[in-house]
Amino acid sequence: MNDFNFYSPTEFVFGKGRAAEAGCFVKKYGGTKVLVHFGGASAVKSGLMDTVKKSLDEAGLPHFELGGVRPNPRDTLVYEGIDLCRKEGIDFILAVGGGSVIDSAKAIAIGVPYDGDFWDMYSGTPIKAALPVATVLTIAAAGSEGSGDSVITREEGMLKRGTGSDLMRPRFSIMDPALTQTLPPYQTACGATDIMAHVFERYFTNTREVEITDRLCEAVLMTMVKETPRVIADPDNYDARANIMWAGMVAHNNIVGVGREQDWNSHGLEHELSGLYDCAHGAGLAVIMPAWMEFVYKHDVMRFAQMATRVFGVKMDFADPEATALEGIRRFRQFLHSIGMPINFEELGAREEDIPVLVEKFGIGDGETGGFVHLKAADAAEIYRIAVRAKL
Amino acid sequence: MNDFNFYSPTEFVFGKGRAAEAGCFVKKYGGTKVLVHFGGASAVKSGLMDTVKKSLDEAGLPHFELGGVRPNPRDTLVYEGIDLCRKEGIDFILAVGGGSVIDSAKAIAIGVPYDGDFWDMYSGTPIKAALPVATVLTIAAAGSEGSGDSVITREEGMLKRGTGSDLMRPRFSIMDPALTQTLPPYQTACGATDIMAHVFERYFTNTREVEITDRLCEAVLMTMVKETPRVIADPDNYDARANIMWAGMVAHNNIVGVGREQDWNSHGLEHELSGLYDCAHGAGLAVIMPAWMEFVYKHDVMRFAQMATRVFGVKMDFADPEATALEGIRRFRQFLHSIGMPINFEELGAREEDIPVLVEKFGIGDGETGGFVHLKAADAAEIYRIAVRAKL
Repeated sequence: MNDFNFYSPTEFVFGKGRAAEAGCFVKKYGGTKVLVHFGGASAVKSGLMDTVKKSLDEAGLPHFELGGVRPNPRDTLVYEGIDLCRKEGIDFILAVGGGSVIDSAKAIAIGVPYDGDFWDMYSGTPIKAALPVATVLTIAAAGSEGSGDSVITREEGMLKRGTGSDLMRPRFSIMDPALTQTLPPYQTACGATDIMAHVFERYFTNTREVEITDRLCEAVLMTMVKETPRVIADPDNYDARANIMWAGMVAHNNIVGVGREQDWNSHGLEHELSGLYDCAHGAGLAVIMPAWMEFVYKHDVMRFAQMATRVFGVKMDFADPEATALEGIRRFRQFLHSIGMPINFEELGAREEDIPVLVEKFGIGDGETGGFVHLKAADAAEIYRIAVRAKL
Repeated sequence: MNDFNFYSPTEFVFGKGRAAEAGCFVKKYGGTKVLVHFGGASAVKSGLMDTVKKSLDEAGLPHFELGGVRPNPRDTLVYEGIDLCRKEGIDFILAVGGGSVIDSAKAIAIGVPYDGDFWDMYSGTPIKAALPVATVLTIAAAGSEGSGDSVITREEGMLKRGTGSDLMRPRFSIMDPALTQTLPPYQTACGATDIMAHVFERYFTNTREVEITDRLCEAVLMTMVKETPRVIADPDNYDARANIMWAGMVAHNNIVGVGREQDWNSHGLEHELSGLYDCAHGAGLAVIMPAWMEFVYKHDVMRFAQMATRVFGVKMDFADPEATALEGIRRFRQFLHSIGMPINFEELGAREEDIPVLVEKFGIGDGETGGFVHLKAADAAEIYRIAVRAKL
């Protein structure tokens, strides 16, 4: 096991109707003037925004609104948020929404005290200060409610880049599974795919002797395999929603990933897809992740066989472990298809002829990147090609 | 799933040789004058105390020492610590040791700002303030490095009582698996038993639809079943030690226990054993926990069958699930014996004739207590009797 630091100071407030406690918690964590950051009409129509604003009023907290965050959140709205916070002297940012809204809120939070273009911090400049952020989560997916990560898309050139710092970990996150019951099945499935990808990116590692985090990863994956089809079949299943929502946090606050080398190439390869086509991140992952697995599995057949047997219940073929490994990948893709996800370029709306553009944007030039398996540009192209051809 | 709040703000600093960072971290978390609280000679002889004090010196932090914490830590030393902190104006408590030292440090931390006898807060008075506490952990067992709990024994009458508050959660915990390599096998096994008990007390629940925490609980238990025999066979196995150490934290900071009713009767029944005989807590649990299981399993045979199959790899007997459940309990007791734990009163040094005294101290009178199964005094007596008779 490798050395590590693990710090997850977010207070998680979990259960039905708990958005009404938002004001109390902002106060508890020192906010006095609040930016409520949100997405589109759904948070308004559902009455959630009213609940949140009423609770801020009751706590005597002045608040401002900035809506309009869209999937693959843009830098343009971040600049707007930074200006608003500075102009109004806002000292606390409350994100009401999913991963995109939270990531946008985090970008604003680090941008306000930064003397320069916030995009610098998505291009390598270290993060040194941030306004406090908190969340009222409306979709189980990104895990941003418990993580210190944020991904933003720069409109100019549709460049999607991430950054991370413990300073961006939310002070509190209100997690009400009932809020996710109105999501369309496609969005629910995209979220589930993202959650599973967050675990797989940690699971495939060259670090030896990591039984505890292996088992914790598998625990989250098995939960997703069980609970996702239940919410697709019955969107009102509160308990299945609740299991997925907590799994989504556990998958990405890194408690299942500490002490091990990780490999985030599938996320990187996907970012170019959703950057270019503006598709859902989870849908892009459904296309890329199994393709990546097929490209790399020979690097450690037994690890893939372990995944196949422990997560998908494949019988180990002791005479042919490679067959077991491949059957695990097949089952994963079959699972994604069964919950309504695309599994190849065509189903996603991506085009084979764009592969050179995608590889170019992936941006590794003559270098290489990765943890489990180092990829060069030609490897990235081959993974995209596998994703073009993929079928059940 | 039930509603819950989960808050685990401790920074975990994990790896070989990291005790040398203690001073930096005390400074990071605002300490200016430090009480170093520890146990006996081992922390001094091993050089660990020197490492810690040197790092405090290098950080320019004045420090005082209070040693002498023993297993089942006593109120008398807590009073001494409170006096010392008040007299010297100490504002940060650093526990160097295992669960007993950490629990004693937490008691001092809540006692210093409290205007009255600290024991009140182990008798129902809510905790409202605490000095910051941090830890340098030397044994994987109690999980106190990540929890807000503390258990103290009052010397008068040897009364063992616990309390809890997020205010007592450590600011940081340094976890160096190498520090546990010098532990005798018996203490290692006691710690492993305590870790498993922390999970089982959460696992056996009447709450339905808790797949994610079921799976996380099983992940920790499977890790312990694999790794514990490895460290018993080879005490220098750093990686197995590392897996157990992180498992011990995960087992008790409650991330595997949220959203579900829990049942801490095995811990309660054990506290009377270690209170009366001053035996190791883990050894007492090895005797009590399987006895408790045998007493309660009929309440939910399928849950015990699930534990048997998922954790101990028992084949499900579909014609006789009760046989599967009992085989799981038998395997658990066999496992405890295999790592050198006592499994009945005689091996523990407890006496059948003391059962009335134990039940009296258990202190439920005509009432009942528990989550999974409510116990009355007669039930407690029967569990102790099962523990008297237990054999492989």
